[in-house]
Amino acid sequence: MNRLQEHDGWVRAVPCELSPPSLKDNTADVDRLLRGIEKGLQDDGVAIRFPLLKRVPGLLREYGYKICALLYDEGHCWRVMDLYPTCSDLSLYGLAIDMGSSTVVVRLVDLSTRAILEDVSFLNPQNEIGPDILTRILFASQKGALDRLQSLLVEKLNQEISRLAERHAIQTKAIVAVSAAGNTTMTHLFLGLDPYWICREPYIPVVNKPALLRSAELGLAVHPEAPILVFPNVGSYFGGDLVAGILASGMAGAEELSILVDVGTNAEVVIGNRDWLVACAGAAGPALEGGVASMGMMAGPGVIDMVRIDPGSGAFSVRAIEHEPPVGICGSGLIDLVAQLFLAGMIDLRGKFVAERCAGRLQEVGGMKHLIVVRGEDSGTGKDLTLSQSDIDALIRSKAAMYTILTTITTMLNVSMKEISRFNIAGTFGSYIDPQSAITLGMIPDLPLETYRPLGNTSLTGAGVALLSAAARDEIYRIRDRITYVELNVNQEFMNLFSAAKFIPHTDKSLFPSVQS
Amino acid sequence: MNRLQEHDGWVRAVPCELSPPSLKDNTADVDRLLRGIEKGLQDDGVAIRFPLLKRVPGLLREYGYKICALLYDEGHCWRVMDLYPTCSDLSLYGLAIDMGSSTVVVRLVDLSTRAILEDVSFLNPQNEIGPDILTRILFASQKGALDRLQSLLVEKLNQEISRLAERHAIQTKAIVAVSAAGNTTMTHLFLGLDPYWICREPYIPVVNKPALLRSAELGLAVHPEAPILVFPNVGSYFGGDLVAGILASGMAGAEELSILVDVGTNAEVVIGNRDWLVACAGAAGPALEGGVASMGMMAGPGVIDMVRIDPGSGAFSVRAIEHEPPVGICGSGLIDLVAQLFLAGMIDLRGKFVAERCAGRLQEVGGMKHLIVVRGEDSGTGKDLTLSQSDIDALIRSKAAMYTILTTITTMLNVSMKEISRFNIAGTFGSYIDPQSAITLGMIPDLPLETYRPLGNTSLTGAGVALLSAAARDEIYRIRDRITYVELNVNQEFMNLFSAAKFIPHTDKSLFPSVQS
Repeated sequence: MNRLQEHDGWVRAVPCELSPPSLKDNTADVDRLLRGIEKGLQDDGVAIRFPLLKRVPGLLREYGYKICALLYDEGHCWRVMDLYPTCSDLSLYGLAIDMGSSTVVVRLVDLSTRAILEDVSFLNPQNEIGPDILTRILFASQKGALDRLQSLLVEKLNQEISRLAERHAIQTKAIVAVSAAGNTTMTHLFLGLDPYWICREPYIPVVNKPALLRSAELGLAVHPEAPILVFPNVGSYFGGDLVAGILASGMAGAEELSILVDVGTNAEVVIGNRDWLVACAGAAGPALEGGVASMGMMAGPGVIDMVRIDPGSGAFSVRAIEHEPPVGICGSGLIDLVAQLFLAGMIDLRGKFVAERCAGRLQEVGGMKHLIVVRGEDSGTGKDLTLSQSDIDALIRSKAAMYTILTTITTMLNVSMKEISRFNIAGTFGSYIDPQSAITLGMIPDLPLETYRPLGNTSLTGAGVALLSAAARDEIYRIRDRITYVELNVNQEFMNLFSAAKFIPHTDKSLFPSVQS
Repeated sequence: MNRLQEHDGWVRAVPCELSPPSLKDNTADVDRLLRGIEKGLQDDGVAIRFPLLKRVPGLLREYGYKICALLYDEGHCWRVMDLYPTCSDLSLYGLAIDMGSSTVVVRLVDLSTRAILEDVSFLNPQNEIGPDILTRILFASQKGALDRLQSLLVEKLNQEISRLAERHAIQTKAIVAVSAAGNTTMTHLFLGLDPYWICREPYIPVVNKPALLRSAELGLAVHPEAPILVFPNVGSYFGGDLVAGILASGMAGAEELSILVDVGTNAEVVIGNRDWLVACAGAAGPALEGGVASMGMMAGPGVIDMVRIDPGSGAFSVRAIEHEPPVGICGSGLIDLVAQLFLAGMIDLRGKFVAERCAGRLQEVGGMKHLIVVRGEDSGTGKDLTLSQSDIDALIRSKAAMYTILTTITTMLNVSMKEISRFNIAGTFGSYIDPQSAITLGMIPDLPLETYRPLGNTSLTGAGVALLSAAARDEIYRIRDRITYVELNVNQEFMNLFSAAKFIPHTDKSLFPSVQS
């Protein structure tokens, strides 16, 4: 059976065999159709929009009164999206979109089989306006700028959707549902809503729970009647991407205590279980994102994602993605590298290079020490790939911030780190990270390794799950309403904790017994 | 209080005093607004469309979080149509439209006071395509013709709406609700739906219960978000105009038995009470409409609407509308005239001129006898106004058809004419008719005169009532669903009844005791 016919979806195909009109039953065409759909659906709130309504008499006669109605649950009623001659060999598709500030990922799903056909990621074209959210918000208040930001994104999406459709030999009109998750500002820019008040006290989004839209309202080049589910935000600093993450992690339904960490410029942390959910966020600094360290890059071919250093010989062994000659390092590779440098004694517990241990690899450029990670003859660029003292310092500040945030929130909730049964790490970053290295650095608590679960792009996963399931769609609003967001006070106490965390792994070594051993 | 705030309307103004956002309550603007409206409305299904949603942050701040929300009940939820700074001095308007095949009437209503401001009537511009419905249906199947028929009507409506607004010094954007009733074909042509199957077996309309539309969907030049309520049809031959008529008559809620007759080319008859409603229709011939008899016209200045003949002297006294010199006669005047001719002995019981009683008024033109009603020197045209034998014959056929339909339906239902407590006559025709004259002719049964109620344009009245009241709007769907429509078999029995009714007042004089006396 076509999975579009299954009852758990909020986008559904309903086959209807209507009795043809006769003198004895001269019900009007549209009323006949709606009655038939309501019977098949076992729900009596079905509505049809005008342009399709006009086509009903022709379609009913063309298809001989046997028809397949494609519907979606609009919340207040079911809406007829389109009509087809048959449900059984209906091939229709959906898109899940992770609207990241820097990278956008689109997942094409076959709604008839629920198979993921392809994920495609591309730079958010709004980077052209500014790489960070704040620049875009400030830009948006200029005349015409909001439209510009929206159309940059929508046009790029349309381009990628059209390529996706071409590669899979499908029509864009066969894409009949879209689900999109992003942070609050990205959600606003996608919808063409002014983010002006998001960054100004008291930090008010235009909307936190946008209703379903039709794709035609946004100009998205899929079926014009396709519903677009936009994930709800908790507030200005806690967006739909994280709600999607919580959905993807399953933590909101679990009995045991879980944590979800999404690391970027901001570290967002959710902690809780099926009874309660508390969230907070704090600045972690950009050190964990690609493109910050001098050799830093986003994950891609030739980017180093794993490093091992033989503590005896001091020999480096690096693994680059797709085994291309190395050209740079990504966030997770950087964590590996710095952890290995510490274990090999090449940096000390403050993260400073230990010159005598780095023999032959250390050089000074403009008064700043650099460690050669890959020599020019072995690199994909022909130049040395180096790590500077300031790169390490930035990473230490970031890992200290991360750990301080975790300490602060758990202390505030009177929860011990040991009570955490699952530590979910979200983000592309999280899918590559070696928890052991992150523990070695003291970035994350010293819990049994099996506690850690790298979940990859949870925003995309969550968007994909909500695309296919009515229960999951309902769940995101419940999750949203359940979250208690707490502001972290960056006070003297926080700064003290932060200072103590700026050592590798920590001033208080007893917190990291596995590193000591 | 502004009547828009009253709870019985389906278009309502709801005042909201929202608490301004703060760090303690940083609910998003739209969520805050909807929460406030839901509180004021005491109903929690409120939705807002995208273009207005975008303007919410600006409007909330401009109006200082004190705001008046204009809403309408969409059936599944309440929809926010617009936002204003205050509800109390809000002046908003509605339109009720009677979409007649030949004449369209638009009523402007002040929604704040529920006062009728003006009725304006004009020829249906679709007359340019064809005066009758069938011609328009056949025309509609040509390429582009459906759009043409629709835009003829919509553009003319827009012209008249703009003039109405100008005369009352209001903005068309202040017109925020529309209710329209018409026969099934007119309803289709107004909505741009193909009426092709309406006149072809088994006579299937596109839709009988159209959902609310937004005016922007039809291109009606009022507030673009204004809801348009289009009256439901029972079927191809029983339209929303009659549902509006039943609503206007109040018969569907009455304990006693009533009849509603709408006379045109078709005579439509509804009979029933709060327990049951049966409807039928039959061809009555065009004799009762203006423009058929040689001197026939639609009601207007100088048109004769009352005639008295002194049985002794044979002197005619005529009353013309607005006391202008007579130029023609309307349907109700014609009934008066022929009834008076009969009572004066100038025609016999078969409707034939009695030459010796018509002395000096009878002349023969082309072998056909004509009676001079108004001599040239007294008429507004300078020519004699005459009534021909064939005009009388046509009227006799029409009145016989009318009476036969009434006899057939009451017989079928086993109801005696005497059981009818109220005999409602709908239509402009009905508002001028003298029931005594119609009884004299044997067109309507010989019931006490107070039984007859001329209701005027019930389609317009019904549309106006449904515009203002949620209960009345609900009632039209209940009325529609309650009606049992019966086909009248034009068989030998019917033809026998028809032949018997072709006498004045009837072959069976005992049916009309008041005429005999």
